[in-house]
Amino acid sequence: MKKQLLLISNSTNYGEDYLEWPKEHIAGFLLDKNIKNVLFIPYAGIGLSPEGEKEAYNIYAERVRNVFAEVGIRSHSIHLEKNPKQAIKDALAIVVGGGNTFYLAYKLYKLRLMDLIKESVENGMPYVGWSAGANIACPSIRTTNDMPIVQPKSFEALNLVPFQINPHYLDVNPEGHGGETREQRIEEFLIANPGMPVVGLRESTYFEIYNDKIELKGSRPMRFFLYGKRPVEYNPGDDVGFLMKYQYQ
Amino acid sequence: MKKQLLLISNSTNYGEDYLEWPKEHIAGFLLDKNIKNVLFIPYAGIGLSPEGEKEAYNIYAERVRNVFAEVGIRSHSIHLEKNPKQAIKDALAIVVGGGNTFYLAYKLYKLRLMDLIKESVENGMPYVGWSAGANIACPSIRTTNDMPIVQPKSFEALNLVPFQINPHYLDVNPEGHGGETREQRIEEFLIANPGMPVVGLRESTYFEIYNDKIELKGSRPMRFFLYGKRPVEYNPGDDVGFLMKYQYQ
Repeated sequence: MKKQLLLISNSTNYGEDYLEWPKEHIAGFLLDKNIKNVLFIPYAGIGLSPEGEKEAYNIYAERVRNVFAEVGIRSHSIHLEKNPKQAIKDALAIVVGGGNTFYLAYKLYKLRLMDLIKESVENGMPYVGWSAGANIACPSIRTTNDMPIVQPKSFEALNLVPFQINPHYLDVNPEGHGGETREQRIEEFLIANPGMPVVGLRESTYFEIYNDKIELKGSRPMRFFLYGKRPVEYNPGDDVGFLMKYQYQ
Repeated sequence: MKKQLLLISNSTNYGEDYLEWPKEHIAGFLLDKNIKNVLFIPYAGIGLSPEGEKEAYNIYAERVRNVFAEVGIRSHSIHLEKNPKQAIKDALAIVVGGGNTFYLAYKLYKLRLMDLIKESVENGMPYVGWSAGANIACPSIRTTNDMPIVQPKSFEALNLVPFQINPHYLDVNPEGHGGETREQRIEEFLIANPGMPVVGLRESTYFEIYNDKIELKGSRPMRFFLYGKRPVEYNPGDDVGFLMKYQYQ
C-alpha cells in the first residue's frame, strides 16, 4: 500500500462559507477511494470555545460534519471516542482540521497518537489535512504561523512528506506594519535548518500525493524556498515531483 | 535594588531608519542612570545573514552599535565574549534585540544564560528589550508572533513581569487573507492559559517599569486581554499599574 495525502493550505477563503472551496476536492479524493466514513481530528480547534476543550471540539466536529454531509461523507470525531488509538486503527481515512498547530501537536503527543497516525498513513490510510492539519504532516511544525500557546513534547511531526509546508502563505504585510514578512520568516527558518526545503502554499491551493507522486492543485502558484537559492514559483500543473525526493541532511 | 525595564514593541516603524523612533527613549532610560556602556544580546538576529550565526551577529551588533553611538552610548555584543556568563555579571545594563524569539530562547538556554539574566535584572541591572527582547522578559514566549524555527529547551522565559506581551500588535489582517487575526490568536492563548493576562503592544509604544510601577508610553493605546473578559484599550498615561499585580493561577 502507499501513502495517499491531501494537504490543503486553508479551510476557508475570505468571505466564503466554511470549507466552501475545498469541500468538493476533499469529497473527490475520498469518494474516488469509495470512502464514505472518516475519522475527524479536531484537536487544533481549541480556540472555538472559551468553555474548554470538549465544547470547542463539539462545535468543530459539528461544523465539519455538516459540510461533509453535504458532499455525501460521514464524519465522526475522535474526541467522542473512549479509545482514540483504537479509533485510528479502525478508521477508513482521517481528516485533520486546522486551528492551532502547537495545540494539535501537544494533544497528539499527549494521547500518544503521533506514531500511530504516521504508521497508519504509511500503510495506506488516506489522510486529509488543512492548515494545521497540513503542517503536522511535515517533518516538523517549525513552519507554522500559529502562536505557541502550549509547549508540545516535540516540534517533530508526522514526517509524511520530506519538505515543510507553510500554509496560508501570503506575500504582503498589512500596510504600514513593521514586522517580518512571511518570506523573511521562512528565510530565518532556512538559515536555522539549511537542509530542509519549504513550500509557501497559498490559500486556495493544495497538494495531492500518492506515494512519491505529487501534484499542486488549485488556483494559484506555490513559492518554493531552499537555503542559498532564490525562491521559485511553480504553477498548478507544473512538475513538482522533486519535492518528494528531498533527503534531509 | 529594584527592577528597571524598558520593554519596546518594535525596533523600527515602517519606512523609518533602524531604531529611529525608540533610540531617544532608550538613551533617556540609560543616560538617566548614568549608563554609557551596555551589553548587547544579538541572539534573536539569526536571520540577518545566510552565512551563519557569527556573521549574522556581527552585522546585528554593528547596526545597533552605530545607532547607540549616535545617542552617546557604547554597545558591546555578547557574541564576541569568550565568557558570556562573566559578561552578563560585569554588564552595567543589557539590551536584547529583536528577531526570532525561539532562536533567542534556544540560545539563552543553550548558553545557560536565562537564569543569570533574570537574577541580574532582579538585582537591579537595567534591561532594555524590543520585539523578541520584550517578549522574552515575560513569563513565557507563548505570545510571540515568530516562526518556531528551532525548539528551545522550554517556552518559559525571564518572567520579569507577571503578564504576557504580544509585540507588534496589529488590528487587521492583509486584505483578503483568511488566516486568524492577531486577536483570534490571543484568544486561543487565553483559552489554553486562562490565568495569564496579555497586552497587545502596538508599534511605536513601550513600557517603562521600575519595580512594581509601570507606565505605557508612546503614541498609541495598548489592548488588554484577559480570559472571559472583553478586550480593553488603555492609552499612554492611563493607570495600568494593575498589570504588575497579576499572580498566575
